Amino acid sequence: MTTTAPPPASLEDRIVELERRLADAEERLPEDRVTIVVFSGDLDKVLAAHVIATGAAAMGQQVSMFFTFWGLNAIRSGKSLAGKQVFEQMMAMMSPSGSRSLPVSKMNYFGVGAQMLRAMMKNKNVASLEEMMQMTRDMGVRVIACEMSRDVMGVQESELMPGLECGGVASMLADALKSRATFFI
Amino acid sequence: MTTTAPPPASLEDRIVELERRLADAEERLPEDRVTIVVFSGDLDKVLAAHVIATGAAAMGQQVSMFFTFWGLNAIRSGKSLAGKQVFEQMMAMMSPSGSRSLPVSKMNYFGVGAQMLRAMMKNKNVASLEEMMQMTRDMGVRVIACEMSRDVMGVQESELMPGLECGGVASMLADALKSRATFFI
Amino acid sequence: MTTTAPPPASLEDRIVELERRLADAEERLPEDRVTIVVFSGDLDKVLAAHVIATGAAAMGQQVSMFFTFWGLNAIRSGKSLAGKQVFEQMMAMMSPSGSRSLPVSKMNYFGVGAQMLRAMMKNKNVASLEEMMQMTRDMGVRVIACEMSRDVMGVQESELMPGLECGGVASMLADALKSRATFFI
Repeated sequence: MTTTAPPPASLEDRIVELERRLADAEERLPEDRVTIVVFSGDLDKVLAAHVIATGAAAMGQQVSMFFTFWGLNAIRSGKSLAGKQVFEQMMAMMSPSGSRSLPVSKMNYFGVGAQMLRAMMKNKNVASLEEMMQMTRDMGVRVIACEMSRDVMGVQESELMPGLECGGVASMLADALKSRATFFI
Repeated sequence: MTTTAPPPASLEDRIVELERRLADAEERLPEDRVTIVVFSGDLDKVLAAHVIATGAAAMGQQVSMFFTFWGLNAIRSGKSLAGKQVFEQMMAMMSPSGSRSLPVSKMNYFGVGAQMLRAMMKNKNVASLEEMMQMTRDMGVRVIACEMSRDVMGVQESELMPGLECGGVASMLADALKSRATFFI
Repeated sequence: MTTTAPPPASLEDRIVELERRLADAEERLPEDRVTIVVFSGDLDKVLAAHVIATGAAAMGQQVSMFFTFWGLNAIRSGKSLAGKQVFEQMMAMMSPSGSRSLPVSKMNYFGVGAQMLRAMMKNKNVASLEEMMQMTRDMGVRVIACEMSRDVMGVQESELMPGLECGGVASMLADALKSRATFFI
C-alpha cells in the first residue's frame, strides 16, 4: 500500500487556513468578564462578593452578580406575606428582609456578630455593604435575581430592590462561560 | 557596541512561525467544559450544583461533578457499619445515607427545613434532586467520587450509587484546568 | 448607492494582520495558574484548599492562595490582645489562634469533630494540614494574607505566620484573571 503526500499548500492557502483557525480561537478566548454567584445570604460572604465585584469592575472587567437562594435576601427591599402560600409565608417570616438584617455565617449571636462586624468596618473607614451595593450599580455591574429561586420561595418582584434584572441559570452560565474568573460564594 | 538587525524573515518563515504559535495557543484555550466540586452535603447547595450541571450540559458543555467530603453523602445509596473502624462508624452513623436525607444549610430544624424546601419545589413543578441527578446521568455528566475522602471516611464502594467513577484531586484538576468555568460548592 | 470593494490585501499585509491579532490573542490566554480564595476558617475547607493547592502545584501550575476573613485564622501563629480595640479583642478571643485549633464546619462538637477528622486522616496516612501547609511553601505556592480583613479585624503582622505576603483584592484578582481555574472556598 502506498500513500501519496498531498501537494504542498500555497502560501495563500496557508494564510486562509490561519485566518480561519485564528477567528475560531478568538471566539473561544475569555472576555474581560467576571461572574459571581451569590448563593449565601450571610453578611460576611455577601460583603466578600461585593469587594470582589467592585474590585473587578475597577480593573475594567464587566461584572455580573447572580443572586440565588439565600443570596436573594441581600437584594430584598422588604417582605410581604400577601398572596403567598403557607410555606412561602414561613420562609419569608424567617428570612432577613434586606441587606441591613443579614446575619454573619459564624458567631452571629442573634445579630450581635453582624452589628459588631459593621462597627469594625466603620472604625476602619471601610465602605458599608449598602455603600458597596450602590457602588456596583454606579460601576455598571449587572445584578441579576435568580428566577427559579424567586419562584420556589415565592419572592415577588415588589419585594426586591428596584431596577434588578431577573434571569435563570442559563443567563448566569452564558456570562460565566465567557469569564476570566467565576466565583461561587 | 553595535548590533546588527536580523535579516528580514521570508513570508514563508513568518507563516511557519504563525502556524507554530497558533497551534500553541489552541492548546491553551479553554474547552467547552464546566467543572463542579461538590464539597457540601447540604440539600440547598447540592441542588444548586445540579441546576448548574444540567444547565451547562444543556448548553453543550462537557460537565464533571466531583463529590468530595460532605458531598459524598449526596451520592450514597445507603450505609453499612461492617468492616469500619470506630471513627468511621461514628462518622457513618452521623451522616445522611443518601440524597433523600440531606439537610439544608440554614433553618434545617432536624429535617423540617429540607422537607419544606422539597415541598416548595414540588409546588412550583421544579424537578426534585433525585430527578436532577438522573438527568445529569442521562445528559452524560461525569460523576466522580473523591478517592481521598472515601478513604479517610471509610466509605466503601458498595455504599455509593452504582456506576460512579472514582478519582483523586488530579483528576478533578485535569478537568478544571481545561474548563471555561469552575464552581466550588 | 454603490460600494467599492477594498483592494485585495497583499499576502504580506495579511501576515502582518495575523501577527497582530495572534499577539493580542496570546495576551488573553489563561496562564498555567490557579487561584484559591480561602474565605473559610473551617478545618475541612482549609484542608480542601490545601489539597487543591498542592495538587495544582504538582501539575506545574503557579498557585496563589489568598486568605481572607475567617481564613486568616488558618495562617495565624498565635494571638495577642495588646494594642487592639474592644471589638478586635472580642473577635480575637473568639477566634482560633492557628491552624491547629480550627473547627470543622459540621459536627464539630467543641472540637471533638476536628480531632476525629485529624485522627482519621492520620490512620490513612494522609498528610496533616500543617504538613500540607509546609508543602505549599516548599512548592512555591504564593500565600497572601488579605489586607482589608487584617485591618478590619485588627490582626497584626506579628500574629501571622512568618514569611507571608500581604495583598488586597486587586492582587488576588490580578492572579485570578490570568488563571485557568479559580476556587472560592
